[in-house]
Amino acid sequence: MSSAKKAKIGVLGASGYTGAELVRLLLCHPQAEIKLLTADRRAGKTMADVFAQFAPFALPTLTSVEDADWSALALDVAFCALPHGTTQTVIKELLARAPRSKVVDLSADFRLADPASYARWYGHAHAAPELQKEAVYGLTEIYREKIKNARLVANPGCYTTAAELPLIPLLKAKAIDPDEIVVDAKSGMTGAGRAARDDMVFAEVSEGFHAYGVGHHRHMAELDQEFSRAAGREVVVSFTPHLAPMNRGILATIYVRGPKATPQDLHAVLAKAYAPEPFVHVLPFGATPQTRHVRGSNMTFIGVAADRIPGRAIIVSALDNLTKGASGQAVQNMNVMLGLPETTGLEQVALFP
Amino acid sequence: MSSAKKAKIGVLGASGYTGAELVRLLLCHPQAEIKLLTADRRAGKTMADVFAQFAPFALPTLTSVEDADWSALALDVAFCALPHGTTQTVIKELLARAPRSKVVDLSADFRLADPASYARWYGHAHAAPELQKEAVYGLTEIYREKIKNARLVANPGCYTTAAELPLIPLLKAKAIDPDEIVVDAKSGMTGAGRAARDDMVFAEVSEGFHAYGVGHHRHMAELDQEFSRAAGREVVVSFTPHLAPMNRGILATIYVRGPKATPQDLHAVLAKAYAPEPFVHVLPFGATPQTRHVRGSNMTFIGVAADRIPGRAIIVSALDNLTKGASGQAVQNMNVMLGLPETTGLEQVALFP
Amino acid sequence: MSSAKKAKIGVLGASGYTGAELVRLLLCHPQAEIKLLTADRRAGKTMADVFAQFAPFALPTLTSVEDADWSALALDVAFCALPHGTTQTVIKELLARAPRSKVVDLSADFRLADPASYARWYGHAHAAPELQKEAVYGLTEIYREKIKNARLVANPGCYTTAAELPLIPLLKAKAIDPDEIVVDAKSGMTGAGRAARDDMVFAEVSEGFHAYGVGHHRHMAELDQEFSRAAGREVVVSFTPHLAPMNRGILATIYVRGPKATPQDLHAVLAKAYAPEPFVHVLPFGATPQTRHVRGSNMTFIGVAADRIPGRAIIVSALDNLTKGASGQAVQNMNVMLGLPETTGLEQVALFP
Amino acid sequence: MSSAKKAKIGVLGASGYTGAELVRLLLCHPQAEIKLLTADRRAGKTMADVFAQFAPFALPTLTSVEDADWSALALDVAFCALPHGTTQTVIKELLARAPRSKVVDLSADFRLADPASYARWYGHAHAAPELQKEAVYGLTEIYREKIKNARLVANPGCYTTAAELPLIPLLKAKAIDPDEIVVDAKSGMTGAGRAARDDMVFAEVSEGFHAYGVGHHRHMAELDQEFSRAAGREVVVSFTPHLAPMNRGILATIYVRGPKATPQDLHAVLAKAYAPEPFVHVLPFGATPQTRHVRGSNMTFIGVAADRIPGRAIIVSALDNLTKGASGQAVQNMNVMLGLPETTGLEQVALFP
Repeated sequence: MSSAKKAKIGVLGASGYTGAELVRLLLCHPQAEIKLLTADRRAGKTMADVFAQFAPFALPTLTSVEDADWSALALDVAFCALPHGTTQTVIKELLARAPRSKVVDLSADFRLADPASYARWYGHAHAAPELQKEAVYGLTEIYREKIKNARLVANPGCYTTAAELPLIPLLKAKAIDPDEIVVDAKSGMTGAGRAARDDMVFAEVSEGFHAYGVGHHRHMAELDQEFSRAAGREVVVSFTPHLAPMNRGILATIYVRGPKATPQDLHAVLAKAYAPEPFVHVLPFGATPQTRHVRGSNMTFIGVAADRIPGRAIIVSALDNLTKGASGQAVQNMNVMLGLPETTGLEQVALFP
Repeated sequence: MSSAKKAKIGVLGASGYTGAELVRLLLCHPQAEIKLLTADRRAGKTMADVFAQFAPFALPTLTSVEDADWSALALDVAFCALPHGTTQTVIKELLARAPRSKVVDLSADFRLADPASYARWYGHAHAAPELQKEAVYGLTEIYREKIKNARLVANPGCYTTAAELPLIPLLKAKAIDPDEIVVDAKSGMTGAGRAARDDMVFAEVSEGFHAYGVGHHRHMAELDQEFSRAAGREVVVSFTPHLAPMNRGILATIYVRGPKATPQDLHAVLAKAYAPEPFVHVLPFGATPQTRHVRGSNMTFIGVAADRIPGRAIIVSALDNLTKGASGQAVQNMNVMLGLPETTGLEQVALFP
Repeated sequence: MSSAKKAKIGVLGASGYTGAELVRLLLCHPQAEIKLLTADRRAGKTMADVFAQFAPFALPTLTSVEDADWSALALDVAFCALPHGTTQTVIKELLARAPRSKVVDLSADFRLADPASYARWYGHAHAAPELQKEAVYGLTEIYREKIKNARLVANPGCYTTAAELPLIPLLKAKAIDPDEIVVDAKSGMTGAGRAARDDMVFAEVSEGFHAYGVGHHRHMAELDQEFSRAAGREVVVSFTPHLAPMNRGILATIYVRGPKATPQDLHAVLAKAYAPEPFVHVLPFGATPQTRHVRGSNMTFIGVAADRIPGRAIIVSALDNLTKGASGQAVQNMNVMLGLPETTGLEQVALFP
Repeated sequence: MSSAKKAKIGVLGASGYTGAELVRLLLCHPQAEIKLLTADRRAGKTMADVFAQFAPFALPTLTSVEDADWSALALDVAFCALPHGTTQTVIKELLARAPRSKVVDLSADFRLADPASYARWYGHAHAAPELQKEAVYGLTEIYREKIKNARLVANPGCYTTAAELPLIPLLKAKAIDPDEIVVDAKSGMTGAGRAARDDMVFAEVSEGFHAYGVGHHRHMAELDQEFSRAAGREVVVSFTPHLAPMNRGILATIYVRGPKATPQDLHAVLAKAYAPEPFVHVLPFGATPQTRHVRGSNMTFIGVAADRIPGRAIIVSALDNLTKGASGQAVQNMNVMLGLPETTGLEQVALFP
């Protein structure tokens, strides 16, 4: 698109954390203009009412998504940060009324390509199967070419981005044993969203650490799909998510066995794969990353170290679950879809300390 | 300056927190190019060695400040984030060798205009009294006109910025009793710098709260100077700093008595004074700010509420001690000194959550 | 009571934080046996279901308070940690059915002695005015003699305990000006209870600091009552509560003016008043306390320092809001009511780090 | 020992975190009396000078360990919380001068029974090889019978206790494949001790998460020894420690494969092994623990869940690194050595929230 004209943007579900992160990033994006912000329960309020940091900025008043006139709005890009379920019908409606709009969906609704897999994990048939078929999985570094021409991008989950970026190149290269992968993932609390649940109250989270969803977590479906695609055979990994007493950040510690490949070989595969990428940085062999060093940025840091057990390696990846793990990658996908330089509006350096 | 040519920038003391914050901001500043980074104890290392978040960026190797050839470097602006004492001699030398360079000093060395006051608070005579005389106090919103032509700007302290922005307009307007001011300030831990002191270790700070420097803190000298200037008479306030278990942020709760002015009057004075300012936002009457809503941004939020005791008001200000309280205001001052739009490179929205 | 026979204890409202803290303390109390735990919404569950730390302990199943047969239970002491309002009717019923039971109420329902004051702050007439009259205010160090023979003790609030312990002796001694008191208080998040409110979610609280209830907070009514009693005249103080990103702890920074008394005089008054007290420790002059050093203990630490403004002093008190600020003081009051040594079951040393 | 006479206790290295935790626990121990506190760099100071929470308690002044007259002191039990290396010579001297004293050593100096293994991991020969031979490994639940008659107990490390309690019974029962064990461990910051290192400063730790010592950590030597003993063959596990932004707590997430045993079988083995133990609690099958629910207590909570991959299970253990992971287990060992009930002085319930 011409650099003179800004893209008209809508954020559906602006009162959640990924919604606020989208607004934060888009306010500094030179080619984007926010035209619509929806938040059903907060309709009529200002964005500053729900997130005080936006008080100094001019932004549209929050409206209900059902009041949106998609045709008249003629959005260039709609970011959809709505709850599971609602999403399918909203996007179906939006694309029917405004067929030239593009959509980046941050929910899980369009991530699984297989209708049977969707039905198994979510317990019901998909409400928009033709769109499910059309949707492109939005792990930008892997699916960039498809994203360029996509109308609907299914933005990956935060855990899955953290696990897939290091593992997909290794599986593609057949450098690791697909049956011996353990992913131990740790997340900050914003990954759980903004809902006021008993177990999310400060005093229940601070000064402690725990696993959850042990043995069963919906992100597993996404991992299975992408790892199997990459390996060209079925891959099922052990995956355990944990909650750490911090706001932002995911660290994935990944245990792999290279049947023949040494840990240094694995490092070389990743270093080569990501050398040209602006948002994936592979640390020197033996060094491992910290979540704080990517906080608020769209970067993923990856480290590879040798385990003391011969043939095993430990891979650690770190990203900000709200940025590269959600809204940052969504903007990155928008840039690809609009033909803009991929880093536009995403140059912010991590906020540390 | 011409928008085509970038300003050549040096950051002296780049391995501390205010140094890292300067680099974070300058990397996104379209008119600035970092040419020099010094860190005496880390000379020879890369910036990524001391702050891993900079690993993906091209930056000069850290050098010792005494190896700098100021004349050859011909810096447009040097930010000085060195410890107290060292600063005076380094800046004296720099300006002698490179008289066309401009300096923004983030230490306390040039904040006090009165040599006697300096000697009383710091226990020794100033090493560069002629520069002390020349230096302009860098509270941008108050001293903008002088900063435009300054060669040496003394960037204010973080506590003092948080207290002075709300109080100076009120004292100038004679709206409050100068003898009845209590400033109760709370700071995040980065305000104490990066030194590995026993009392700064995580476990000594986490899950607790305390006051320090009760009855005596060097920032008081700065407050006295600026409040007395604003009131046109001597003003001495009660000031107590506290440490909160968080990285960034200062909240100042200020108790004042308006001899005749109502709390609403005080609010009106501040709302009017800061209406045109991009980095000071006055909340609606009765609302008070939170530090998290300015985190990582250059904003100061100010709220005014009525106390239940007639005639008294409670004013609360919030800023990020590393941004508006230090490096952000330093870049703001650079912009003023170079004739750039004041918000250049400082548009980042607060990182919340 | 005989040391051989344990007191039969009920905890009404066991699923909240003060309820859990009571159970924690009573499980180590050699003279107490928990016979009843109520939690209406969780009736039928175990205590371990709502607080996993109790899994290894044998405790009564949670029941609904309305299912309690007060007469048959014949509790020696009932701790009432119920929400405001409910409390009045439950205690009225309990004492009617079991007139030999004693009650320590942790709600605000019986703290105000004046029916008019109660009605003004709470917006309705008291439902048990005769009990309101009978209730003894449970600040143990000040009202110990009355508590000994009380049937109903109104346990003080956490903020009020932190402010009253240092100020009551000074007001009684007429050592400070009652019209020039500012109380700036900071609390951990457990002070807000266990309710899942939007503003209590981890990510809304972590890494930030703010004031709330500025100019109006119900604890003020209690402060007014007790300070006026101590001074023998009406006293109204400036009081601002803040929330710090920590679980436990209150720090009150108190600004006072001694019309004639020096700061050292104020320190002497407090040191003398609290010398015999096991749970109030006055630090050496000039030292101020940290909340972490009383965490989980029933101690209050108090420090007095001179302000640099002649005639003014800064007093800092620290306590754990759930222990001395609530459940610990409740157990202390139980000990007094039962004629046990006051420190029984309360000897735990602060948990630091 | 007679319950009338209290054991005379020394704490060597009282100014560190495990030293403070020993003092916290011993002050509430009815059969212990602290007679000696050493802290070389703080000799001459009071315990309250280095840990303010002890201000209200009467305790011996800190002395230098080399000034201790072991023969005259005739300690019943010395807890040794000194740095690696120093420990060997101090204990050798102590036991030579006071042969009837018993020692619980909290350092790593006597944990490895094999002199060759010690030399390999620590880079030098052991300075007291005859004591190394005599020392009993102090994992109480496993070595209780030997501890009863031991003169020198080598208290296990915190990570190792968290991994060994769940794994030793499973390895002994040959219920899991010893070659397929991954231990992903997360610790609070107090595990790193009290030293003021750059990477332990609050702002470097807060709001972030990272792995460290990837592929090489000295606790591995202990794990190898104990797992090999339990399995009756050499066992080497993958082990990665991480640091979480919290003070206390270790969570170990352990991935195992039962060649024939189902996850339910593994749960049954552990539930049976620990049914009689007061300080190990096995949760119902499928439930997993949180560190906050054991904070400040001597409990270990263990959970077992099925992985979705047939044949694999995920085991999670949680303990407080300073209590069961260090000083609590040390007091537990003292109780065993002195013939006291094992829970004496250790009944404190976890401090949550």
